[in-house]
Amino acid sequence: MTNDDGRSAAFVPGHITGFFSAHPAADPAKAGSRGAGLTLTDGVQVAITPGTGVRLNGRAVSIGPVENVLDELGVDAGVDAETDLPIGAGFGVSGAVALGTALAANAAFDCARSENELVTVAHRAEVASGTGLGDVVAQARGGVPIRREPGAPGYGVLDGIPARTRVEYIAFGELSTEEVLSGDTRRLSAAGERALERVLETPTLSTFVDASRTFAEDAGLLTTEVADAIEAVSAVGGDASMAMLGRTVFALGTGLSDAGYDPSVCRTHATGASLVERDPGPAVPPTCGPS
Amino acid sequence: MTNDDGRSAAFVPGHITGFFSAHPAADPAKAGSRGAGLTLTDGVQVAITPGTGVRLNGRAVSIGPVENVLDELGVDAGVDAETDLPIGAGFGVSGAVALGTALAANAAFDCARSENELVTVAHRAEVASGTGLGDVVAQARGGVPIRREPGAPGYGVLDGIPARTRVEYIAFGELSTEEVLSGDTRRLSAAGERALERVLETPTLSTFVDASRTFAEDAGLLTTEVADAIEAVSAVGGDASMAMLGRTVFALGTGLSDAGYDPSVCRTHATGASLVERDPGPAVPPTCGPS
Repeated sequence: MTNDDGRSAAFVPGHITGFFSAHPAADPAKAGSRGAGLTLTDGVQVAITPGTGVRLNGRAVSIGPVENVLDELGVDAGVDAETDLPIGAGFGVSGAVALGTALAANAAFDCARSENELVTVAHRAEVASGTGLGDVVAQARGGVPIRREPGAPGYGVLDGIPARTRVEYIAFGELSTEEVLSGDTRRLSAAGERALERVLETPTLSTFVDASRTFAEDAGLLTTEVADAIEAVSAVGGDASMAMLGRTVFALGTGLSDAGYDPSVCRTHATGASLVERDPGPAVPPTCGPS
Repeated sequence: MTNDDGRSAAFVPGHITGFFSAHPAADPAKAGSRGAGLTLTDGVQVAITPGTGVRLNGRAVSIGPVENVLDELGVDAGVDAETDLPIGAGFGVSGAVALGTALAANAAFDCARSENELVTVAHRAEVASGTGLGDVVAQARGGVPIRREPGAPGYGVLDGIPARTRVEYIAFGELSTEEVLSGDTRRLSAAGERALERVLETPTLSTFVDASRTFAEDAGLLTTEVADAIEAVSAVGGDASMAMLGRTVFALGTGLSDAGYDPSVCRTHATGASLVERDPGPAVPPTCGPS
């Protein structure tokens, strides 16, 4: 552990995408999505540990993008990720682990990469694995990110809705990002472009949720329990929509509680992913590969 | 107050520039500086109040960029700014008040501007007033910002050093930004470009401070008490340099304390400027001008 404050852990906020259009490209740094979403105070804590292998909430897992990130940085390390977020339900957990690994490994091994370089490494790894298109750049930014142009830093263009709010969510189960993204995304992307146009015209939270709801309907992704919950929140005067891509409903303020659900509660996260302090653990030999 | 959580205040981190090159342009959105600095947990809290006029730490003041920002947003409002930072000593206080005003007024008056638009409004106001070139975009970003290309969002390009650290500082007095920037900046800018090249090559905190120190010497801006303090920190093995533009010395970690000074202490700020919650005050009528 060579970071001068003894840190080799990062916190990455969860990210709910409200709507998006898919923009594949041969170069994963140029590929990505346009759209908008909410970053969340509920997120993923990622620590670099001695040894090898990736653990998520204490269980050994295989997360494609993470192995990519470690390879790209030329380091051998273990990764220990902890999160309260539901997995595979549209919260950007795989992107968060990839980005957190990049930040924490850079610190632990003195890789001397810039933040844009680390975001690029994680974005490319996520896109190449097919597990996401826009979570990493949104999670690196924080707040309520608008992805105006797709891609990693240098290609993508981000903006944000200047607002903070309480967020409620409830996850009914998984939806495979890989499956949706590998199918025909033309209808979905056309709906996503329309939603983005609306939010760029009026960048407020209420326009964001309204555009997200229209997107979810137009893209044909709603499942019954998701549609029912959104409807129930609307019936009590609240704002809710579906997290892309998961069988998850999110609402602003107390929307889901008001509708009689028992949701998880957090807030939008003011900041993007960042290093965190942690108790010094066993030392990791600093052996960052050639950059 | 129409923001749904009753907020009309923003926190903007202080910003110490370690080195820079000046890049004037006819369009203030394209003008700016390249360079690098530290954003600080010590910053400025800016609240929108009923009435008119700007108050800084309870005293009526005139801050050119702030009046510009309110004009640009088409709102009439009072601005109440509070800070523990020294004024005019290289902490970006004028930029912070401008940016905080933009964020808080947008929320209070439902102006429906995006974050990039608000940063642009504040950046243009600051550049047009001659009070700064790069603080606003750095303060909007947070962390340890590298300004790779000058200008507001859409023109400027930012990156960052992925690190967090304790920062100590001591201010010996004011230095007029207007005066330095209105003089011949060629020597200074050439030194700034060399420093930036080094930091882009090795984006670490120690390279940043080292490049900053070389810049301060090459640019001929050191005053005696500043040079003495930097020297004293170096003598005890610490890293210190001068805040641009102020008669201020900053050090990483415990550099100034170790050298026997009694500095102010804070940390790098993980996030950029953002809205904060505050107790609901008297209502401000929402009358945002045409955008």
